[in-house]
Amino acid sequence: MEYVNLNGQLVRDADAKIHISDLGLRRGYGAFEFFRVLRGVPVFIEDHLDRFENSSRAIDLEVPYSRAELEGFVRELIRANNLQSAGIQLVLTGGYSEDIFTPGHPNLIIAPIALREYPPALYQQGVKVITHRHEREIPEAKTTAYLTAVKLGPRMKAEGAAEVIYHDGKWVTEGARSSLGFVKDGVLVTAKDGVLPGITRIHALRLAEQLMPVEHRAFTLDELYAADEVFITSSTRGVMPVTRIDDRLVGNGQVGPKVSALVKAFQAHVEEYVARHAAVDSRWSIANSQ
Amino acid sequence: MEYVNLNGQLVRDADAKIHISDLGLRRGYGAFEFFRVLRGVPVFIEDHLDRFENSSRAIDLEVPYSRAELEGFVRELIRANNLQSAGIQLVLTGGYSEDIFTPGHPNLIIAPIALREYPPALYQQGVKVITHRHEREIPEAKTTAYLTAVKLGPRMKAEGAAEVIYHDGKWVTEGARSSLGFVKDGVLVTAKDGVLPGITRIHALRLAEQLMPVEHRAFTLDELYAADEVFITSSTRGVMPVTRIDDRLVGNGQVGPKVSALVKAFQAHVEEYVARHAAVDSRWSIANSQ
Repeated sequence: MEYVNLNGQLVRDADAKIHISDLGLRRGYGAFEFFRVLRGVPVFIEDHLDRFENSSRAIDLEVPYSRAELEGFVRELIRANNLQSAGIQLVLTGGYSEDIFTPGHPNLIIAPIALREYPPALYQQGVKVITHRHEREIPEAKTTAYLTAVKLGPRMKAEGAAEVIYHDGKWVTEGARSSLGFVKDGVLVTAKDGVLPGITRIHALRLAEQLMPVEHRAFTLDELYAADEVFITSSTRGVMPVTRIDDRLVGNGQVGPKVSALVKAFQAHVEEYVARHAAVDSRWSIANSQ
Repeated sequence: MEYVNLNGQLVRDADAKIHISDLGLRRGYGAFEFFRVLRGVPVFIEDHLDRFENSSRAIDLEVPYSRAELEGFVRELIRANNLQSAGIQLVLTGGYSEDIFTPGHPNLIIAPIALREYPPALYQQGVKVITHRHEREIPEAKTTAYLTAVKLGPRMKAEGAAEVIYHDGKWVTEGARSSLGFVKDGVLVTAKDGVLPGITRIHALRLAEQLMPVEHRAFTLDELYAADEVFITSSTRGVMPVTRIDDRLVGNGQVGPKVSALVKAFQAHVEEYVARHAAVDSRWSIANSQ
């Protein structure tokens, strides 16, 4: 990618550097956000910018730009890099700190990243996930605290897993980079609180309510192992069926009808969103590039 | 401070910048170390470099410099900044990452920071600490994961507390930036495992064994509240007496005799270390500046 946005300025990627006194770098103090760009459209950008502001507030940082400015930076970045299909990450750090502990004026990074497309076969066959005992710090906020997730990367790869699901020894919360839910006896169950408000999850659950009863409640690892169908949700994956957890099959190891219907409903929902916004965004783009 | 060391090079602080694709910045993926410099001597540097290598290994990063090189960088930095009394932090990050998730070649930062001296009165009167439910990720390693600690900064300040002590609802582990122990009926109790191997703690416990029986075992918040004497240890504070935990007094609220003796023994131990190494270090410095 040729350009990123650093503190409100579009700069060449090669020049995008920050001083080492930044608290994101030195103390892992930063809010994080990620969304997809599809055919040039930032998908569910309103929800993502809402959450970015909430995550920032949860760690006592104030985004030093208005919502209109943030959205402008994103659209300018999409245009400058001519992004069609990609991801965009936002990071708001604790800023430069003299004592390397007390937050200063936040630094904002908005950077595109290349995304691999998931093979359609994965949505028909499902993926494997592994489990790990861990709770994210400040679970309601999306932050740069991915130490455990990054460290588990090689284990995931070795075990052929698409994701790691966190639990506390009994209760299941969320994935390292996804939310999750399961279907048992026709009812969809997903966590109620103590988890990140996943944007894909919110949209998917709204669609799921048309398809089956939905329960928001705490659930255990044993319940997850005994589920008929399991799925994870994330901005990159959408709704993705899970057919294996650790060394156990989910149900008969095949993608079930309820999750399969939800996968399709969500894909259609995204398509509809992109089609609806592509026209608007292209007018925005023309108006703002003159 | 005028100079820092970035990836083995002494550079002016103003020029010490890293690219935004660094995994320490974007995913909080970094090993951390901190030690004091007293009269130009890096205190217990051998132990700190040992732990830095261990922490790096714990998050699957390899320090890309030999021990002799690392020590050379530190001594060169002390000389270049003419450091007499200061702190030095080391950070080894996951490096530049194309997918912003998979670690690359690590980036090394060695940077001095100004240290306030703690008023001697604090060692005679003791300090207040507050408690918070939290467990550090990968507790045996010192990493840049200080999200909770930094967020608690304003609460500490508002409550006049010198430190936050972490517990899991029952068991006490360690401070946000310190280790701790207590004395009950003449016996010193300190955590056995699941905590950072504090360098000051290790040295202090060795001295404590000359003064009283020492038990390494898990202990609860209730036990801590009921202790006769409590102390925290850290590189900046040495051994510091705690006379208040949340809204409760420790014992009668005065610094007790056992902790008082330990404070003095540790101060003498550091003085002895600095005196012993000052002569050697000045020879090293002369030999290497020619």
